[in-house]
Amino acid sequence: MSEHQFDIGIIGCGPAGLSAAVNAKNKNRDIVVLGAEICSPPLHKAPLISNYLGFPSITGEELRQSFLGHASMLGIEIIKSKADNVFPDDDGYLIISQGRMIRAKTVIICTGIPYRNTLQNESDFLGKGLGYCATCDGPLYRGKDVAIVGYSEEAEPEANYLSEICSQVYYLPLYKKEPAVAAKVKVVRERPLAVEGDEAVKSLKTNKSQLPVDGIFIVGAETSPERLVPGLELNENFIKVNRNMETNLPGIFAAGDCTGPPYQLSKSTGEGQIAALNATKMVLKMKS
Amino acid sequence: MSEHQFDIGIIGCGPAGLSAAVNAKNKNRDIVVLGAEICSPPLHKAPLISNYLGFPSITGEELRQSFLGHASMLGIEIIKSKADNVFPDDDGYLIISQGRMIRAKTVIICTGIPYRNTLQNESDFLGKGLGYCATCDGPLYRGKDVAIVGYSEEAEPEANYLSEICSQVYYLPLYKKEPAVAAKVKVVRERPLAVEGDEAVKSLKTNKSQLPVDGIFIVGAETSPERLVPGLELNENFIKVNRNMETNLPGIFAAGDCTGPPYQLSKSTGEGQIAALNATKMVLKMKS
Repeated sequence: MSEHQFDIGIIGCGPAGLSAAVNAKNKNRDIVVLGAEICSPPLHKAPLISNYLGFPSITGEELRQSFLGHASMLGIEIIKSKADNVFPDDDGYLIISQGRMIRAKTVIICTGIPYRNTLQNESDFLGKGLGYCATCDGPLYRGKDVAIVGYSEEAEPEANYLSEICSQVYYLPLYKKEPAVAAKVKVVRERPLAVEGDEAVKSLKTNKSQLPVDGIFIVGAETSPERLVPGLELNENFIKVNRNMETNLPGIFAAGDCTGPPYQLSKSTGEGQIAALNATKMVLKMKS
Repeated sequence: MSEHQFDIGIIGCGPAGLSAAVNAKNKNRDIVVLGAEICSPPLHKAPLISNYLGFPSITGEELRQSFLGHASMLGIEIIKSKADNVFPDDDGYLIISQGRMIRAKTVIICTGIPYRNTLQNESDFLGKGLGYCATCDGPLYRGKDVAIVGYSEEAEPEANYLSEICSQVYYLPLYKKEPAVAAKVKVVRERPLAVEGDEAVKSLKTNKSQLPVDGIFIVGAETSPERLVPGLELNENFIKVNRNMETNLPGIFAAGDCTGPPYQLSKSTGEGQIAALNATKMVLKMKS
């Protein structure tokens, strides 16, 4: 693990994350920004935006480019790596991101609209056959049958890994591209609907069939805030924040869609700014 | 009084007010925007802005023009008239603005950094010889001596008016331009410091002298939120709002610097947006 500790770790590179980054950089903070492949797919897809003050009429993609251009002009780099977990660390937090370990005094979470449980009974079977990390829990299913619900291509290596230790692996891709998985993995183009069982998972019900399995993994969906940061207080599905964009955990801030509606650009950039300025204040206090 | 009732009355035309206006207009709301002569003097004067996402480097004046241009492209007109008071009215509020009476179902207050009492003892003598509206209270000082602290040229007609009914009128301009006041008005270029008296005002102390007066008027400063809207709950000097930008009074929202620091553009435009969308929701509920 690197000994370097950043002032502020920003998780997410949509409008809230980029506004936080730009504001923190303007305050001379040492920051790290973790983002997904495309910063803000919703912005990328927006046909026309007319309510972001100063740009009367602009496409989402043009505005996305101008946001990224602004960050890039200030020398802000975005590490294209998903944050998996944030844990407390000496004087700050440890961000674990696809094998990387990053230390930061404060963290701003800007992960967008949180993933909601989509399968019926999903939360009831969590830890009873249902999981989100095949690499972590896979060994429990050695020689057994499992299903993987893949929200993105990220899920494919997990399916391949499970195929080496499990008896039967069903892979249900929820994206259009043809999955590139090992021959042993059985690709099932069905829509998963519900988790079934009693004490533990017994099957995955789809729109067309019932797959008899001992384990179900949901992989590649947006990490939900409470899984990202254990102990984070939520308000319904959203991260609970006060007007300073502080969460219940000292040094952890949140901004943008993950704090709740309205899902709008100015709201997100405003919250990113407030979070960055308050994180900066906290860092300066820690230094003194 | 006009019978017409607007959906949303927006008080202030800085970044928060314009963002509220643009967002409300985008939601097809029937809005009215009241503003001062120059929308947002602080923005007008800002030499360089580098933290409003999407504009990497721009002068305050350029950004101000692009904000105003955005509003104007959507057909938003700004009435150059200061709001003096907001009172409850049937199904909404009545905004009184320099003699105009404007009805609105909801109101968004975006009046910027609130004016703070600047004279020592100012609040102690409020209503005991100290006032903010010469036109209203002037008759009480017929034949007496008064001083007017003029924050802007707006105060000049009030001084002229008082010179017709009072014995001696001292005028202390707090701006650079040479005041154009009636011959009877005595212009005093001194800095007002404290209100003095016992039961009532007896004199105005300045950095150079002591002016013996029965009344003191402070005119042309930003109206403080609690004078603008009686009953509005404050948090120190700022308007108390929740995350929906709702104040303690149903249908009255606030956004921007008047809700407290940080005094920053994205924070203001974000809050203006949230206020406008929530005011819109409320108006639509009232209609149904």
